[in-house]
Amino acid sequence: MKIIIVGGVAGGATAAARIRRNDETAEILMIERGQYISFANCGLPYHISGMIEEREQLLVTSEPAFTERYRVDVRSHTEAIAIDRKNKVVRLRNVTSGDEYDESYDKLLLSPGAEPVRPKLPGIDSPRVFGLRNIADMDRIMTHLAQHNPRRAVVIGGGFIGIEVAENLHEKAVFTTIVEGCDQILTPLDYEMAAIVHSHMRDKNIELYLEDKVEQFEDKDSHTVVYLSSGRRLQADLVVLAIGVRPETTLARAAGIDLGSTGGIRVNSHLQTSDPDIYAVGDAIEVTQTISGQQVLIPLAGPANRQGRMAADNMVFGNSKTYRGTQGTSILKAFDLAAATTGLNEKQLVAADIPFLSCITHSGSHASYYPGAKQISLKLLFTDKGEILGAQAVGADGADKRIDVIATAIHGKLNVEDLTELELAYAPPYGSAKDPVNIAGYVATNVLNKSHELIEWKELRAALETKESDMQLIDVRTAEEFGFGSIPTARNIDVNQLREHLDELDVNKPVVLFCQIGLRGYLAYRILTQHGFTQVRNLSGGYKSYAWAVD
Amino acid sequence: MKIIIVGGVAGGATAAARIRRNDETAEILMIERGQYISFANCGLPYHISGMIEEREQLLVTSEPAFTERYRVDVRSHTEAIAIDRKNKVVRLRNVTSGDEYDESYDKLLLSPGAEPVRPKLPGIDSPRVFGLRNIADMDRIMTHLAQHNPRRAVVIGGGFIGIEVAENLHEKAVFTTIVEGCDQILTPLDYEMAAIVHSHMRDKNIELYLEDKVEQFEDKDSHTVVYLSSGRRLQADLVVLAIGVRPETTLARAAGIDLGSTGGIRVNSHLQTSDPDIYAVGDAIEVTQTISGQQVLIPLAGPANRQGRMAADNMVFGNSKTYRGTQGTSILKAFDLAAATTGLNEKQLVAADIPFLSCITHSGSHASYYPGAKQISLKLLFTDKGEILGAQAVGADGADKRIDVIATAIHGKLNVEDLTELELAYAPPYGSAKDPVNIAGYVATNVLNKSHELIEWKELRAALETKESDMQLIDVRTAEEFGFGSIPTARNIDVNQLREHLDELDVNKPVVLFCQIGLRGYLAYRILTQHGFTQVRNLSGGYKSYAWAVD
Ligand SMILES: Cc1cc2nc3c(=O)[nH]c(=O)nc-3n(C[C@H](O)[C@H](O)[C@H](O)COP(=O)(O)OP(=O)(O)OC[C@H]3O[C@@H](n4cnc5c(N)ncnc54)[C@H](O)[C@@H]3O)c2cc1C
Ligand SMILES: Cc1cc2nc3c(=O)[nH]c(=O)nc-3n(C[C@H](O)[C@H](O)[C@H](O)COP(=O)(O)OP(=O)(O)OC[C@H]3O[C@@H](n4cnc5c(N)ncnc54)[C@H](O)[C@@H]3O)c2cc1C
Ligand SMILES: CC(C)(COP(=O)(O)OP(=O)(O)OC[C@H]1O[C@@H](n2cnc3c(N)ncnc32)[C@H](O)[C@@H]1OP(=O)(O)O)[C@@H](O)C(=O)NCCC(=O)NCCS
Ligand SMILES: CC(C)(COP(=O)(O)OP(=O)(O)OC[C@H]1O[C@@H](n2cnc3c(N)ncnc32)[C@H](O)[C@@H]1OP(=O)(O)O)[C@@H](O)C(=O)NCCC(=O)NCCS
Repeated sequence: MKIIIVGGVAGGATAAARIRRNDETAEILMIERGQYISFANCGLPYHISGMIEEREQLLVTSEPAFTERYRVDVRSHTEAIAIDRKNKVVRLRNVTSGDEYDESYDKLLLSPGAEPVRPKLPGIDSPRVFGLRNIADMDRIMTHLAQHNPRRAVVIGGGFIGIEVAENLHEKAVFTTIVEGCDQILTPLDYEMAAIVHSHMRDKNIELYLEDKVEQFEDKDSHTVVYLSSGRRLQADLVVLAIGVRPETTLARAAGIDLGSTGGIRVNSHLQTSDPDIYAVGDAIEVTQTISGQQVLIPLAGPANRQGRMAADNMVFGNSKTYRGTQGTSILKAFDLAAATTGLNEKQLVAADIPFLSCITHSGSHASYYPGAKQISLKLLFTDKGEILGAQAVGADGADKRIDVIATAIHGKLNVEDLTELELAYAPPYGSAKDPVNIAGYVATNVLNKSHELIEWKELRAALETKESDMQLIDVRTAEEFGFGSIPTARNIDVNQLREHLDELDVNKPVVLFCQIGLRGYLAYRILTQHGFTQVRNLSGGYKSYAWAVD
Repeated sequence: MKIIIVGGVAGGATAAARIRRNDETAEILMIERGQYISFANCGLPYHISGMIEEREQLLVTSEPAFTERYRVDVRSHTEAIAIDRKNKVVRLRNVTSGDEYDESYDKLLLSPGAEPVRPKLPGIDSPRVFGLRNIADMDRIMTHLAQHNPRRAVVIGGGFIGIEVAENLHEKAVFTTIVEGCDQILTPLDYEMAAIVHSHMRDKNIELYLEDKVEQFEDKDSHTVVYLSSGRRLQADLVVLAIGVRPETTLARAAGIDLGSTGGIRVNSHLQTSDPDIYAVGDAIEVTQTISGQQVLIPLAGPANRQGRMAADNMVFGNSKTYRGTQGTSILKAFDLAAATTGLNEKQLVAADIPFLSCITHSGSHASYYPGAKQISLKLLFTDKGEILGAQAVGADGADKRIDVIATAIHGKLNVEDLTELELAYAPPYGSAKDPVNIAGYVATNVLNKSHELIEWKELRAALETKESDMQLIDVRTAEEFGFGSIPTARNIDVNQLREHLDELDVNKPVVLFCQIGLRGYLAYRILTQHGFTQVRNLSGGYKSYAWAVD
């Protein structure tokens, strides 16, 4: 059996290794356009700052080492330029010499990845404008940093890579601005969760221009001017484009392989393309989102690796393995915070027409009395039957753990009540007897069985803006906390005294309660609703979420 | 409705708060023998060293604060001494004044916790011998430390509390010895996993005397002599007894409430005792282990809290909630390591007569190229159908996360193949594209489908001891690694050259392969079994686990 693999990094190299483990006799050719196979794409931003010190650390394995161990015929500096599907032949071009030649295959695997989006803006070919996808891109940025010692950088795009690049440029003492077309960075998060990251990035002195777009670049002698649609002009000594990626489908398209509506290569559940002898994996394919059932692009390393292994099995043993789709779990480090998500967020749920409920809680990463506990903000999205649709966590410690737990719960089709029952490892340095995930489960089940009703910050803000409502807005924190700032028009009644002040509230008018994080508002909710109040709601995520989202 | 709760800490206080949230009108009495309600039992060891600086931090809430918020009639310094079940009356004694009086109840909740085991050894009443269960115990130890400035401590018992106490005494510059009757500390772990902690504790200069027992204490003027059954005598300025706890059932037993065979209070799935008006939760009850179905004692804070909340609901609303049992997830910090477990370990599986398979892997806590990655050793136990029975993780970072993920997987009845598919949050600071949990899943599924056969360290050691076997033991690491030390009688053939050296091995004799962690041994396994070798096994956990367990 002769197998050709196009692309020698996450999906491709994993498949090559697994094919060899599956079959000592297979002839395996791995074709890579670039200089390196198996490099750590995800580590690239961190070498810019020197956080990852040695460039070599990014080379997870080398061509000779891989060849020696796996006896794979690695062809780097080689591009696959055409597929003759009828004759099962791939046309290859040595990108150094320009030589072209053919190789036949029994099975072909495409793992060509994605290409950075690069809009045709005036001036985009400036030598000060960079992208970041591979080692060569990174080398170019490093060289520019070394030669020009830039003072001001503009990063276009506030997605994962944009934020990582901004952080690492900032660590190199480059004053960095992020320009983002949406009203928030980090679109996998909902607005009020991203707002936590906005605030943190600004604290770190990263400038954010949201709802703004680049229109043009203009090179001056000493710098480049970045023109934004708002009319702003930014001076930059370095510009990094990070406005997303699109599937690399040139080869597949030219060969007449079906693409899906997202633009990614279409595969069946065995990761087989429309040509049964050609499999495809990784950033280049579209996948089924496990919750919505929709076809989507989820260009992440975990899925690419998993798909590579599975395609290897299906190519060698026949279609024995089924890919069940991608859930979309991801995480980003933004300075001291981690922002992690799994499943679907509000925007995606709305787009997929899936009705949902949500709750936001803020808990300590571990027992508050043990030093070093950090706040985790956790948003949970679920159906009115309790099925978990998604979760988002932002925090300086332990956000990754909580999202991994909920990602596992989603995989296992657990519901929010199960979250209350999860037995997670507890000792004071690691968690709480009631873990943040249990707490989120409590709040969600209370919402479901209507022993707790929430109002979201958006709805409260809208109600406050109309000013016409007869809503009674009550801050149930202490007088001292109230004194430090509250939501305009709120009255203060400490939850601990609420029972003595019931007669000051109109039982026939709506009441909105809030405290700092939601817990005391909930207690107040329980008191009021058991004293004849019927229109009571508690602010989801409390003053904390409100202040982040609205300020 | 009048509810009396006996015990005002984890289970009791949680139930009291939840009952109030459920029912504003209930009359709630919370009876606590000690001075404090709602204290952080789990934090006690950490105040000894000053890691938790302020004693007050251990008081999670105070009697006045709790009363004000929840309008619970808290009676501290009060012991429940008898239950008249016929008349539904509890006899209470004020432990300060000695006054006794009765209180009637509609429903009664017992959350009296556990009492430390204190064997009747000669000399055990020495003023230098302490236990640690509550604030008063801790205060006594702190006073002794302040007044006598001890130099040498002996901790009896190598369980969670013993190890935590030893660490914290060591942090106070007290030279500390742990005496443990078993051949290992931390019995929730299997031997080779505990061996990692042994080695770490010894590195930290904690002395471990395993398979040894205390027989007697003898007070001298300046110190106490601890006599061990091995004949050893240890000098101690301070002794802490931590040989486990037993359910506190004095009250229940006297009232004729059924106990189970474990000695804990027997409850049904609604947490109701043999008396339907009396519920019981926490360390005092026996629970169903979710995997074995057996009745066991699992004295941990998470279950106590959850049970307290559930009993509150059942007492107020009728038996609406069902407790599904306890899985037994736990974690311990031992200096720089975390040791975490979920489900059953080998000993428990053998005792429960459940056949099992296992694998041990060692992975980085996050991508190796990003600074700060620490090794996680992960043991997975599973049935021959792939059902997950338990897991153990030891490591300096991220062991808690992996056990929480597997605990969730067990709750969701996921199998080892699901572990390969879990989509966990990956960016270089937090994980790997193939997370340690995915890797454990890969190895386990390979074992299941017999594309990988393992040998355990115990079996290899036994085979080496008999010396009669015709086993070919091959170290497939590099010559350099081999040079630093290997398993006696092993030959070195680097996996990368194995294909060229096949003729040096006898295809008809058994081969045992090993490398450092198991990965290269597996690659070698794949090569040999595809070249006609039929009796090949790879050492589970590699040389690393072997060396820890055997040395
Ligand atoms: C800066 C950066 C940071 C990232 N951080 C994260 C992260 O933290 N977490 C995460 O999950 N993901 C991250 N990713 C995404 C992750 O790297 C990708 O999802 C993953 O590498 C996709 O694997 P793949 O095999 O599909 O493509 P790639 O790994 O990109 O490999 C594709 C290879 O195919 C080669 N190729 C393409 N066409 C041809 C052709 N015609 N002939 C020959 N060779 C060809 C390309 O040169 C390329 O090397 C990051 C990506 C980047 C760029
Ligand atoms: C030092 C230490 C460290 C620990 N570390 C951890 C850890 O890291 N993780 C973990 O999960 N668990 C840990 N635990 C265990 C955890 O604290 C218990 O599982 C949990 O507190 C049990 O809750 P409970 O309500 O059953 O009992 P407790 O919390 O012990 O409360 C029982 C209370 O009842 C009172 N009482 C008993 N009988 C009577 C009576 N007749 N009348 C009046 N009052 C009575 C007692 O005075 C006691 O205060 C630790 C325990 C200790 C002592
Ligand atoms: C202090 C103590 C009485 C608190 O008990 P509790 O009120 O049940 O627990 P919490 O403070 O975590 O609050 C949980 C409740 O608040 C709600 N809640 C928490 N965060 C919320 C938020 N952001 N928004 C709305 N509700 C929230 C939860 O739904 C839950 O209420 P429910 O049970 O009615 O659903 C109890 O935990 C205790 O005594 N602890 C110390 C003893 C101990 O546990 N020792 C062992 C470990 S060291
Ligand atoms: C380097 C690379 C080729 C390795 O691929 P790989 O061999 O599939 O992956 P690993 O090295 O993690 O090894 C996993 C294999 O070893 C086995 N294994 C791992 N630890 C083991 C142990 N302790 N004992 C036995 N087997 C073990 C697993 O079962 C698995 O084998 P299988 O797939 O046949 O079941 C590939 O991951 C790569 O190119 N990575 C860099 C690119 C990349 O991923 N970029 C994106 C992220 S930055």
